[in-house]
Amino acid sequence: MKRWSMDKQLIQECIDACLACVAACEACATACLSEPDIDMMRGCIRLDRDYADVCALTARLLMRGSAVHARACALCAEACAACAAECGQHSHEHCQRCAEACRRCEEACRKMAA
Amino acid sequence: MKRWSMDKQLIQECIDACLACVAACEACATACLSEPDIDMMRGCIRLDRDYADVCALTARLLMRGSAVHARACALCAEACAACAAECGQHSHEHCQRCAEACRRCEEACRKMAA
Amino acid sequence: MKRWSMDKQLIQECIDACLACVAACEACATACLSEPDIDMMRGCIRLDRDYADVCALTARLLMRGSAVHARACALCAEACAACAAECGQHSHEHCQRCAEACRRCEEACRKMAA
Amino acid sequence: MKRWSMDKQLIQECIDACLACVAACEACATACLSEPDIDMMRGCIRLDRDYADVCALTARLLMRGSAVHARACALCAEACAACAAECGQHSHEHCQRCAEACRRCEEACRKMAA
Repeated sequence: MKRWSMDKQLIQECIDACLACVAACEACATACLSEPDIDMMRGCIRLDRDYADVCALTARLLMRGSAVHARACALCAEACAACAAECGQHSHEHCQRCAEACRRCEEACRKMAA
Repeated sequence: MKRWSMDKQLIQECIDACLACVAACEACATACLSEPDIDMMRGCIRLDRDYADVCALTARLLMRGSAVHARACALCAEACAACAAECGQHSHEHCQRCAEACRRCEEACRKMAA
Repeated sequence: MKRWSMDKQLIQECIDACLACVAACEACATACLSEPDIDMMRGCIRLDRDYADVCALTARLLMRGSAVHARACALCAEACAACAAECGQHSHEHCQRCAEACRRCEEACRKMAA
Repeated sequence: MKRWSMDKQLIQECIDACLACVAACEACATACLSEPDIDMMRGCIRLDRDYADVCALTARLLMRGSAVHARACALCAEACAACAAECGQHSHEHCQRCAEACRRCEEACRKMAA
């Protein structure tokens, strides 16, 4: 019935981490777009936009048990690392939350990609 | 900072219901594709496929506080009602779970669309 | 074999208009994020972000012949009208192109939603 | 203004190939779901479903000039190769068309990933 066998709990943790990261990226981008210092938030908005999409796709492929899940997780881990590095530079609470969610997602995705 | 003001808890419940529905639809479609009686699951797979996408978009728009969220929730409620009706006809556990997730998502989306 | 019968050419035109609108919205948001006057482009980026996603989903549902295509097109038409109104206010070439793509997409979607 | 510089024509060709592949995968999955021999089309539907999503994301990231485009194209090329191999085994016209679109998309993505 399944296309690949892995520890179910590990998969579920990765799905949850990806979805939490989508929510954090969307909230961060939305908040950045209302910040007075939007000029400094350009990179943050860009990465939030791209990586919310990457995390969302990765979660969907994991939910399906897609054959291509490992490579998607590798892409997602790379994306989350970049987003965490960018968002982590800003002191806004939404940026800090986003950076934290990205780090957790990166860690979960690296386990799945291995 | 927000583009629309609504009860935050209601929004979060709707986001959670949408994401649970995405997961249930993806799991149901994947399981249907491995069922011996796949001939009877055609409609189920079709609706799972379409409405997982609709629920996923609705969740993303809600996360962002999009101006178009009410109409998206109306679309999502209609989609979930149709999916619940189809999946509810099948006795497979994944279909019953999907139907239940769709009904909850429909209810949450109707509140937001109102 | 098909779930709904409509003029194939009309459907293809609507798919093309949606995809052209996705591309124009993505290009506009990306360019806005690099504009010196980003402070004035906040609304533009917000709507580009939301409506690229709405147009992309609408195109996918049309490609599939989804049962829910009419309501999705109605949502998409509303979204495109709002995006055209916002982007049309800015003189940047990417905004004007985006407004034009949104107007064409709105028109095509209204025909399908009818 | 751009986050990466590459031959614009190459990028546009890759976007077009990805979108053509999305359309072919969606059409193929929809048609497979109505085939009398659906029992043999399970793998085809699965891959169409996953890789339409992968191609769609890749196109969006390319439209934006995303920093992560190269890795996304590598994932997309791998996905398209697998889908072409599966769909190419079936004589249905929609499968043959899908296999051809996948091969073109794979080729375009490999150039971008390099």
